Amino acid sequence: MTIKETGFQGLVEIFPRIFEDDRGFFFEAYNKEVFNDHGILYDFVQDNQSFSKKGVIRGLHMQLAPYAQAKFVKVITGKVLDVVVDMRPESDTYGKVYYCMLDSKLNNSLMIPEGFAHGFAALEDSVFSYKCSNLYHKASETGILYNDETLNIDWGVENPIVSEKDLELPTFREFVARNETVH
Amino acid sequence: MTIKETGFQGLVEIFPRIFEDDRGFFFEAYNKEVFNDHGILYDFVQDNQSFSKKGVIRGLHMQLAPYAQAKFVKVITGKVLDVVVDMRPESDTYGKVYYCMLDSKLNNSLMIPEGFAHGFAALEDSVFSYKCSNLYHKASETGILYNDETLNIDWGVENPIVSEKDLELPTFREFVARNETVH
Ligand SMILES: Cc1cn([C@H]2C[C@H](O)[C@@H](COP(=O)(O)OP(=O)(O)O[C@H]3O[C@@H](C)[C@H](O)[C@@H](O)[C@H]3O)O2)c(=O)[nH]c1=O
Ligand SMILES: Cc1cn([C@H]2C[C@H](O)[C@@H](COP(=O)(O)OP(=O)(O)O[C@H]3O[C@@H](C)[C@H](O)[C@@H](O)[C@H]3O)O2)c(=O)[nH]c1=O
Repeated sequence: MTIKETGFQGLVEIFPRIFEDDRGFFFEAYNKEVFNDHGILYDFVQDNQSFSKKGVIRGLHMQLAPYAQAKFVKVITGKVLDVVVDMRPESDTYGKVYYCMLDSKLNNSLMIPEGFAHGFAALEDSVFSYKCSNLYHKASETGILYNDETLNIDWGVENPIVSEKDLELPTFREFVARNETVH
Repeated sequence: MTIKETGFQGLVEIFPRIFEDDRGFFFEAYNKEVFNDHGILYDFVQDNQSFSKKGVIRGLHMQLAPYAQAKFVKVITGKVLDVVVDMRPESDTYGKVYYCMLDSKLNNSLMIPEGFAHGFAALEDSVFSYKCSNLYHKASETGILYNDETLNIDWGVENPIVSEKDLELPTFREFVARNETVH
Protein backbone atom coordinates (compact mmCIF):
# COMPACT_ATOMS: atom_id res chain seq x y z
CA MET A 1 0.00 0.00 0.00
CA THR A 2 0.99 3.63 -0.43
CA ILE A 3 0.57 6.29 2.25
CA LYS A 4 0.03 9.98 1.59
CA GLU A 5 0.67 12.42 4.41
CA THR A 6 -1.90 15.19 4.90
CA GLY A 7 -0.05 17.70 7.08
CA PHE A 8 -2.36 16.76 9.99
CA GLN A 9 -0.59 14.63 12.62
CA GLY A 10 -1.78 11.00 12.33
CA LEU A 11 -4.20 11.65 9.44
CA VAL A 12 -3.11 9.76 6.30
CA GLU A 13 -4.66 8.75 3.00
CA ILE A 14 -4.04 5.13 2.01
CA PHE A 15 -3.96 3.58 -1.47
CA PRO A 16 -4.06 -0.21 -1.49
CA ARG A 17 -2.17 -2.37 -3.99
CA ILE A 18 -4.80 -3.71 -6.38
CA PHE A 19 -4.42 -7.01 -8.27
CA GLU A 20 -6.45 -7.18 -11.47
CA ASP A 21 -7.10 -10.25 -13.60
CA ASP A 22 -9.75 -11.80 -15.90
CA ARG A 23 -12.06 -12.38 -12.94
CA GLY A 24 -12.10 -8.79 -11.64
CA PHE A 25 -9.79 -7.55 -8.90
CA PHE A 26 -8.55 -8.22 -5.39
CA PHE A 27 -6.95 -6.12 -2.67
CA GLU A 28 -6.14 -6.20 1.00
CA ALA A 29 -8.24 -3.41 2.50
CA TYR A 30 -6.64 -3.83 5.92
CA ASN A 31 -3.64 -5.80 7.11
CA LYS A 32 -2.75 -5.44 10.78
CA GLU A 33 0.94 -6.19 10.26
CA VAL A 34 1.33 -3.74 7.37
CA PHE A 35 -0.57 -1.03 9.27
CA ASN A 36 1.59 -1.64 12.35
CA ASP A 37 4.72 -1.38 10.21
CA HIS A 38 3.47 2.04 9.12
CA GLY A 39 2.93 3.12 12.72
CA ILE A 40 -0.86 2.67 12.70
CA LEU A 41 -1.30 0.76 15.93
CA TYR A 42 -5.03 0.95 16.63
CA ASP A 43 -6.98 -2.17 17.55
CA PHE A 44 -10.14 -2.02 15.50
CA VAL A 45 -13.15 -3.47 17.30
CA GLN A 46 -16.14 -2.45 15.18
CA ASP A 47 -16.92 -2.28 11.43
CA ASN A 48 -19.83 -0.16 10.20
CA GLN A 49 -21.51 0.04 6.83
CA SER A 50 -23.97 2.65 5.64
CA PHE A 51 -25.75 3.44 2.42
CA SER A 52 -26.43 7.08 1.60
CA LYS A 53 -28.46 8.50 -1.24
CA LYS A 54 -26.84 11.19 -3.35
CA GLY A 55 -27.07 14.50 -1.47
CA VAL A 56 -26.93 13.06 2.06
CA ILE A 57 -24.57 14.63 4.59
CA ARG A 58 -23.74 12.57 7.72
CA GLY A 59 -21.79 14.39 10.43
CA LEU A 60 -19.83 15.94 11.88
CA HIS A 61 -19.56 13.22 14.54
CA MET A 62 -17.22 12.13 17.29
CA GLN A 63 -17.30 10.34 20.65
CA LEU A 64 -15.93 11.92 23.81
CA ALA A 65 -12.96 10.46 25.69
CA PRO A 66 -12.50 7.77 26.91
CA TYR A 67 -14.69 6.49 24.05
CA ALA A 68 -12.92 8.46 21.28
CA GLN A 69 -12.78 6.52 18.01
CA ALA A 70 -10.07 6.43 15.40
CA LYS A 71 -11.75 5.57 12.09
CA PHE A 72 -10.43 3.93 8.97
CA VAL A 73 -12.92 4.97 6.28
CA LYS A 74 -13.57 4.16 2.61
CA VAL A 75 -16.35 3.87 0.05
CA ILE A 76 -17.23 0.63 -1.70
CA THR A 77 -19.62 2.01 -4.28
CA GLY A 78 -20.12 5.62 -5.29
CA LYS A 79 -18.13 8.66 -4.22
CA VAL A 80 -18.16 10.88 -1.14
CA LEU A 81 -16.45 14.05 -0.02
CA ASP A 82 -15.00 13.05 3.32
CA VAL A 83 -14.47 15.90 5.79
CA VAL A 84 -12.57 15.93 9.07
CA VAL A 85 -11.92 18.67 11.60
CA ASP A 86 -8.98 18.56 13.99
CA MET A 87 -10.47 18.90 17.51
CA ARG A 88 -7.17 18.46 19.41
CA PRO A 89 -6.45 21.79 21.16
CA GLU A 90 -2.70 21.11 21.34
CA SER A 91 -2.43 20.30 17.63
CA ASP A 92 -0.76 22.60 15.05
CA THR A 93 -3.82 22.12 12.85
CA TYR A 94 -6.43 22.58 15.60
CA GLY A 95 -9.75 23.78 14.16
CA LYS A 96 -8.62 23.18 10.58
CA VAL A 97 -10.65 21.21 8.04
CA TYR A 98 -9.26 18.48 5.77
CA TYR A 99 -11.16 17.30 2.69
CA CYS A 100 -10.61 13.95 1.00
CA MET A 101 -12.49 12.65 -2.01
CA LEU A 102 -13.14 8.95 -1.43
CA ASP A 103 -13.87 7.24 -4.70
CA SER A 104 -14.83 3.60 -5.21
CA LYS A 105 -13.02 3.70 -8.55
CA LEU A 106 -9.74 4.39 -6.70
CA ASN A 107 -10.43 2.40 -3.54
CA ASN A 108 -8.53 5.01 -1.55
CA SER A 109 -9.16 5.26 2.18
CA LEU A 110 -8.51 7.69 5.03
CA MET A 111 -7.03 6.84 8.43
CA ILE A 112 -8.53 9.33 10.88
CA PRO A 113 -6.90 9.31 14.34
CA GLU A 114 -8.74 10.00 17.56
CA GLY A 115 -9.56 13.64 18.19
CA PHE A 116 -11.21 14.49 14.88
CA ALA A 117 -14.83 15.29 14.07
CA HIS A 118 -15.85 13.34 10.97
CA GLY A 119 -18.52 13.57 8.32
CA PHE A 120 -19.11 13.05 4.64
CA ALA A 121 -21.32 14.17 1.77
CA ALA A 122 -22.55 11.53 -0.70
CA LEU A 123 -21.82 12.95 -4.16
CA GLU A 124 -23.41 9.79 -5.62
CA ASP A 125 -25.45 6.97 -4.10
CA SER A 126 -22.70 5.47 -1.94
CA VAL A 127 -21.89 2.53 0.30
CA PHE A 128 -19.56 3.76 3.04
CA SER A 129 -17.58 1.32 5.16
CA TYR A 130 -15.37 1.96 8.19
CA LYS A 131 -13.47 0.39 11.05
CA CYS A 132 -13.50 1.94 14.53
CA SER A 133 -10.94 1.67 17.32
CA ASN A 134 -13.60 1.94 20.01
CA LEU A 135 -17.15 0.62 20.26
CA TYR A 136 -20.23 2.74 19.68
CA HIS A 137 -21.15 4.47 22.94
CA LYS A 138 -24.39 6.40 22.54
CA ALA A 139 -23.99 8.53 25.67
CA SER A 140 -20.60 9.79 24.45
CA GLU A 141 -21.76 10.80 20.98
CA THR A 142 -21.29 14.41 20.06
CA GLY A 143 -20.30 16.49 17.06
CA ILE A 144 -20.37 19.82 15.26
CA LEU A 145 -23.11 21.31 13.11
CA TYR A 146 -22.32 20.54 9.46
CA ASN A 147 -23.00 24.14 8.35
CA ASP A 148 -21.17 25.79 11.22
CA GLU A 149 -20.17 29.36 10.33
CA THR A 150 -16.70 29.26 11.84
CA LEU A 151 -15.69 26.15 9.90
CA ASN A 152 -17.57 27.20 6.75
CA ILE A 153 -17.25 23.79 5.08
CA ASP A 154 -17.97 23.48 1.37
CA TRP A 155 -19.69 20.08 1.18
CA GLY A 156 -20.26 20.21 -2.56
CA VAL A 157 -23.99 19.40 -2.38
CA GLU A 158 -27.05 21.61 -2.62
CA ASN A 159 -30.14 21.07 -0.43
CA PRO A 160 -28.46 18.31 1.57
CA ILE A 161 -30.43 15.56 3.32
CA VAL A 162 -29.41 15.72 7.01
CA SER A 163 -30.76 13.76 9.99
CA GLU A 164 -32.74 15.62 12.65
CA LYS A 165 -30.16 14.60 15.22
CA ASP A 166 -27.39 16.24 13.18
CA LEU A 167 -29.31 19.52 12.86
CA GLU A 168 -29.17 19.82 16.66
CA LEU A 169 -25.42 19.47 17.06
CA PRO A 170 -23.53 22.37 18.67
CA THR A 171 -21.52 24.88 16.64
CA PHE A 172 -17.73 24.73 16.82
CA ARG A 173 -17.67 27.62 19.32
CA GLU A 174 -20.43 26.11 21.47
CA PHE A 175 -18.57 22.84 21.50
CA VAL A 176 -15.25 24.44 22.46
CA ALA A 177 -16.95 26.34 25.31
CA ARG A 178 -17.99 23.02 26.83
CA ASN A 179 -14.37 22.09 27.48
CA GLU A 180 -14.92 18.40 26.71
CA THR A 181 -12.11 15.99 25.90
CA VAL A 182 -12.21 14.18 22.58
CA HIS A 183 -9.04 12.07 22.68
CA MET B 1 -27.86 -9.30 15.16
CA THR B 2 -29.46 -12.68 14.62
CA ILE B 3 -27.56 -15.95 14.35
CA LYS B 4 -28.68 -18.98 12.35
CA GLU B 5 -27.05 -22.31 13.11
CA THR B 6 -26.08 -24.45 10.12
CA GLY B 7 -25.57 -27.91 11.66
CA PHE B 8 -21.79 -27.55 11.10
CA GLN B 9 -19.88 -26.89 14.33
CA GLY B 10 -18.80 -23.22 14.43
CA LEU B 11 -20.32 -22.29 11.06
CA VAL B 12 -23.12 -19.73 11.47
CA GLU B 13 -25.03 -17.32 9.26
CA ILE B 14 -25.39 -13.80 10.67
CA PHE B 15 -28.09 -11.22 9.99
CA PRO B 16 -27.25 -7.70 11.20
CA ARG B 17 -29.79 -5.29 12.63
CA ILE B 18 -30.37 -2.68 9.95
CA PHE B 19 -31.46 0.91 10.72
CA GLU B 20 -33.27 2.60 7.83
CA ASP B 21 -34.14 6.28 7.54
CA ASP B 22 -34.56 9.06 4.94
CA ARG B 23 -30.83 9.08 4.24
CA GLY B 24 -30.44 5.37 3.46
CA PHE B 25 -29.44 2.78 6.03
CA PHE B 26 -26.82 1.91 8.64
CA PHE B 27 -25.66 -1.28 10.31
CA GLU B 28 -22.84 -2.65 12.40
CA ALA B 29 -21.20 -5.27 10.18
CA TYR B 30 -18.90 -6.41 12.97
CA ASN B 31 -18.81 -5.67 16.68
CA LYS B 32 -16.13 -7.46 18.68
CA GLU B 33 -18.12 -7.39 21.92
CA VAL B 34 -21.32 -8.73 20.35
CA PHE B 35 -19.39 -11.43 18.47
CA ASN B 36 -17.59 -12.41 21.69
CA ASP B 37 -20.92 -12.59 23.51
CA HIS B 38 -22.05 -15.07 20.85
CA GLY B 39 -18.93 -17.18 21.35
CA ILE B 40 -17.10 -15.93 18.24
CA LEU B 41 -13.70 -15.22 19.72
CA TYR B 42 -11.43 -14.81 16.70
CA ASP B 43 -9.07 -11.86 16.43
CA PHE B 44 -9.41 -10.59 12.89
CA VAL B 45 -6.17 -9.24 11.47
CA GLN B 46 -6.86 -8.80 7.75
CA ASP B 47 -9.76 -7.50 5.62
CA ASN B 48 -9.96 -8.38 1.92
CA GLN B 49 -12.12 -7.03 -0.84
CA SER B 50 -12.60 -8.48 -4.31
CA PHE B 51 -14.73 -7.71 -7.31
CA SER B 52 -15.92 -10.62 -9.45
CA LYS B 53 -17.75 -10.47 -12.75
CA LYS B 54 -20.89 -12.55 -13.04
CA GLY B 55 -19.87 -16.18 -13.70
CA VAL B 56 -16.58 -16.10 -11.76
CA ILE B 57 -15.83 -18.93 -9.33
CA ARG B 58 -13.08 -18.31 -6.74
CA GLY B 59 -12.02 -21.34 -4.69
CA LEU B 60 -11.99 -23.66 -2.99
CA HIS B 61 -9.24 -22.16 -0.84
CA MET B 62 -7.69 -22.60 2.58
CA GLN B 63 -4.38 -22.11 4.37
CA LEU B 64 -2.63 -24.95 6.19
CA ALA B 65 -2.05 -24.92 9.96
CA PRO B 66 -0.62 -22.97 11.73
CA TYR B 67 -1.81 -20.33 9.22
CA ALA B 68 -5.43 -21.56 9.04
CA GLN B 69 -7.90 -18.72 8.61
CA ALA B 70 -11.37 -18.31 10.00
CA LYS B 71 -13.27 -16.01 7.62
CA PHE B 72 -16.21 -13.72 8.16
CA VAL B 73 -17.61 -13.21 4.66
CA LYS B 74 -20.30 -11.07 3.03
CA VAL B 75 -21.18 -9.31 -0.22
CA ILE B 76 -21.58 -5.56 -0.52
CA THR B 77 -23.02 -5.41 -4.01
CA GLY B 78 -24.43 -8.26 -6.06
CA LYS B 79 -25.08 -11.84 -4.99
CA VAL B 80 -22.89 -14.91 -4.64
CA LEU B 81 -23.40 -18.56 -3.86
CA ASP B 82 -20.96 -19.12 -1.02
CA VAL B 83 -19.69 -22.69 -0.63
CA VAL B 84 -17.73 -24.25 2.22
CA VAL B 85 -16.44 -27.78 2.77
CA ASP B 86 -15.71 -29.15 6.23
CA MET B 87 -12.08 -30.35 6.14
CA ARG B 88 -11.85 -31.29 9.84
CA PRO B 89 -11.38 -35.10 9.97
CA GLU B 90 -12.80 -35.34 13.51
CA SER B 91 -15.97 -33.39 12.64
CA ASP B 92 -19.44 -34.98 12.33
CA THR B 93 -19.84 -33.13 9.05
CA TYR B 94 -16.37 -33.93 7.65
CA GLY B 95 -16.33 -33.79 3.84
CA LYS B 96 -19.82 -32.27 3.70
CA VAL B 97 -20.65 -29.16 1.68
CA TYR B 98 -22.64 -26.18 2.97
CA TYR B 99 -24.19 -23.62 0.60
CA CYS B 100 -25.16 -20.10 1.61
CA MET B 101 -26.62 -17.46 -0.70
CA LEU B 102 -25.03 -14.15 0.25
CA ASP B 103 -27.14 -11.29 -1.01
CA SER B 104 -26.35 -7.58 -0.79
CA LYS B 105 -30.08 -6.93 -0.49
CA LEU B 106 -30.13 -8.91 2.78
CA ASN B 107 -26.66 -8.02 4.04
CA ASN B 108 -26.37 -11.49 5.52
CA SER B 109 -22.93 -12.88 6.28
CA LEU B 110 -21.30 -16.22 7.06
CA MET B 111 -18.86 -16.93 9.89
CA ILE B 112 -16.60 -19.74 8.66
CA PRO B 113 -14.37 -21.25 11.34
CA GLU B 114 -10.87 -22.59 10.72
CA GLY B 115 -10.75 -25.98 9.00
CA PHE B 116 -13.03 -25.24 6.06
CA ALA B 117 -12.26 -24.92 2.35
CA HIS B 118 -14.04 -21.85 1.00
CA GLY B 119 -15.15 -20.56 -2.37
CA PHE B 120 -17.94 -18.69 -4.07
CA ALA B 121 -19.64 -18.23 -7.42
CA ALA B 122 -20.64 -14.72 -8.50
CA LEU B 123 -24.27 -14.97 -9.64
CA GLU B 124 -24.11 -11.25 -10.45
CA ASP B 125 -21.24 -8.74 -10.68
CA SER B 126 -20.33 -8.71 -6.99
CA VAL B 127 -18.13 -6.97 -4.45
CA PHE B 128 -17.09 -9.54 -1.85
CA SER B 129 -15.64 -8.48 1.50
CA TYR B 130 -14.19 -10.58 4.31
CA LYS B 131 -12.27 -10.55 7.53
CA CYS B 132 -9.57 -13.16 8.27
CA SER B 133 -8.29 -14.44 11.60
CA ASN B 134 -4.79 -15.02 10.23
CA LEU B 135 -2.68 -13.13 7.70
CA TYR B 136 -2.23 -14.20 4.10
CA HIS B 137 0.63 -16.71 3.91
CA LYS B 138 1.33 -17.64 0.32
CA ALA B 139 3.40 -20.74 1.08
CA SER B 140 0.51 -22.21 3.13
CA GLU B 141 -2.16 -21.68 0.49
CA THR B 142 -3.95 -24.78 -0.69
CA GLY B 143 -7.43 -25.84 -1.67
CA ILE B 144 -9.66 -28.27 -3.55
CA LEU B 145 -10.60 -28.28 -7.23
CA TYR B 146 -13.92 -26.50 -7.63
CA ASN B 147 -15.37 -29.23 -9.86
CA ASP B 148 -14.08 -32.14 -7.79
CA GLU B 149 -16.08 -35.31 -8.51
CA THR B 150 -16.34 -36.49 -4.91
CA LEU B 151 -17.81 -33.21 -3.68
CA ASN B 152 -19.91 -32.67 -6.84
CA ILE B 153 -20.73 -29.05 -5.99
CA ASP B 154 -23.54 -27.32 -7.87
CA TRP B 155 -22.17 -23.77 -8.26
CA GLY B 156 -25.18 -22.48 -10.18
CA VAL B 157 -23.14 -21.01 -13.05
CA GLU B 158 -22.42 -22.29 -16.56
CA ASN B 159 -18.98 -21.87 -18.20
CA PRO B 160 -17.45 -20.40 -15.06
CA ILE B 161 -14.44 -18.07 -15.17
CA VAL B 162 -11.76 -19.70 -12.98
CA SER B 163 -8.13 -18.65 -12.37
CA GLU B 164 -5.34 -20.84 -13.73
CA LYS B 165 -4.10 -21.35 -10.20
CA ASP B 166 -7.47 -22.74 -9.13
CA LEU B 167 -7.58 -25.21 -12.05
CA GLU B 168 -4.44 -26.83 -10.62
CA LEU B 169 -5.74 -27.44 -7.11
CA PRO B 170 -5.85 -31.06 -5.89
CA THR B 171 -9.04 -33.10 -5.77
CA PHE B 172 -10.60 -33.85 -2.40
CA ARG B 173 -9.09 -37.37 -2.41
CA GLU B 174 -5.65 -36.12 -3.45
CA PHE B 175 -5.77 -33.53 -0.71
CA VAL B 176 -6.80 -36.07 1.94
CA ALA B 177 -3.98 -38.42 0.89
CA ARG B 178 -1.46 -35.68 1.71
CA ASN B 179 -2.37 -35.85 5.38
CA GLU B 180 -1.99 -32.11 5.90
CA THR B 181 -3.45 -30.22 8.85
CA VAL B 182 -5.89 -27.40 8.15
CA HIS B 183 -6.76 -26.19 11.65
C1 LIG C 1 -22.90 4.97 14.73
C2 LIG C 1 -23.84 3.85 15.19
C3 LIG C 1 -25.20 3.98 15.10
N1 LIG C 1 -26.03 2.99 15.52
C4 LIG C 1 -27.49 3.14 15.35
C5 LIG C 1 -28.07 4.37 16.01
C6 LIG C 1 -29.15 4.82 15.05
O1 LIG C 1 -30.38 4.14 15.35
C7 LIG C 1 -28.71 4.33 13.69
C8 LIG C 1 -28.12 5.44 12.83
O2 LIG C 1 -27.18 6.14 13.61
P1 LIG C 1 -26.62 7.56 13.16
O3 LIG C 1 -25.77 8.08 14.27
O4 LIG C 1 -27.72 8.42 12.66
O5 LIG C 1 -25.74 7.13 11.91
P2 LIG C 1 -24.66 8.03 11.10
O6 LIG C 1 -24.28 7.28 9.87
O7 LIG C 1 -25.19 9.42 10.95
O8 LIG C 1 -23.41 8.07 12.11
C9 LIG C 1 -22.09 7.88 11.66
O9 LIG C 1 -21.69 9.04 10.94
C10 LIG C 1 -20.32 9.02 10.49
C11 LIG C 1 -20.05 10.33 9.75
C12 LIG C 1 -19.38 8.85 11.69
O10 LIG C 1 -18.05 8.68 11.26
C13 LIG C 1 -19.78 7.59 12.48
O11 LIG C 1 -18.93 7.47 13.62
C14 LIG C 1 -21.23 7.66 12.90
O12 LIG C 1 -21.39 8.72 13.82
O13 LIG C 1 -27.70 3.32 13.93
C15 LIG C 1 -25.52 1.81 16.03
O14 LIG C 1 -26.28 0.88 16.39
N2 LIG C 1 -24.17 1.64 16.12
C16 LIG C 1 -23.30 2.62 15.73
O15 LIG C 1 -22.06 2.42 15.82
C1 LIG D 1 -5.76 -13.98 -0.81
C2 LIG D 1 -4.69 -12.92 -1.06
C3 LIG D 1 -4.17 -12.70 -2.31
N1 LIG D 1 -3.22 -11.75 -2.53
C4 LIG D 1 -2.73 -11.52 -3.90
C5 LIG D 1 -2.15 -12.73 -4.57
C6 LIG D 1 -2.58 -12.57 -6.02
O1 LIG D 1 -1.63 -11.81 -6.72
C7 LIG D 1 -3.86 -11.76 -5.97
C8 LIG D 1 -5.12 -12.60 -6.17
O2 LIG D 1 -5.03 -13.73 -5.30
P1 LIG D 1 -6.01 -14.99 -5.47
O3 LIG D 1 -5.55 -16.03 -4.51
O4 LIG D 1 -6.09 -15.38 -6.92
O5 LIG D 1 -7.40 -14.35 -5.02
P2 LIG D 1 -8.78 -15.13 -4.71
O6 LIG D 1 -9.84 -14.12 -4.60
O7 LIG D 1 -8.95 -16.23 -5.71
O8 LIG D 1 -8.47 -15.75 -3.28
C9 LIG D 1 -9.41 -15.74 -2.25
O9 LIG D 1 -10.48 -16.63 -2.57
C10 LIG D 1 -11.48 -16.76 -1.56
C11 LIG D 1 -12.51 -17.74 -2.03
C12 LIG D 1 -10.83 -17.21 -0.24
O10 LIG D 1 -11.77 -17.21 0.81
C13 LIG D 1 -9.71 -16.25 0.15
O11 LIG D 1 -9.09 -16.71 1.34
C14 LIG D 1 -8.69 -16.13 -0.96
O12 LIG D 1 -8.05 -17.39 -1.11
O13 LIG D 1 -3.88 -11.14 -4.68
C15 LIG D 1 -2.74 -10.96 -1.49
O14 LIG D 1 -1.89 -10.08 -1.69
N2 LIG D 1 -3.25 -11.14 -0.23
C16 LIG D 1 -4.20 -12.09 0.03
O15 LIG D 1 -4.65 -12.19 1.20
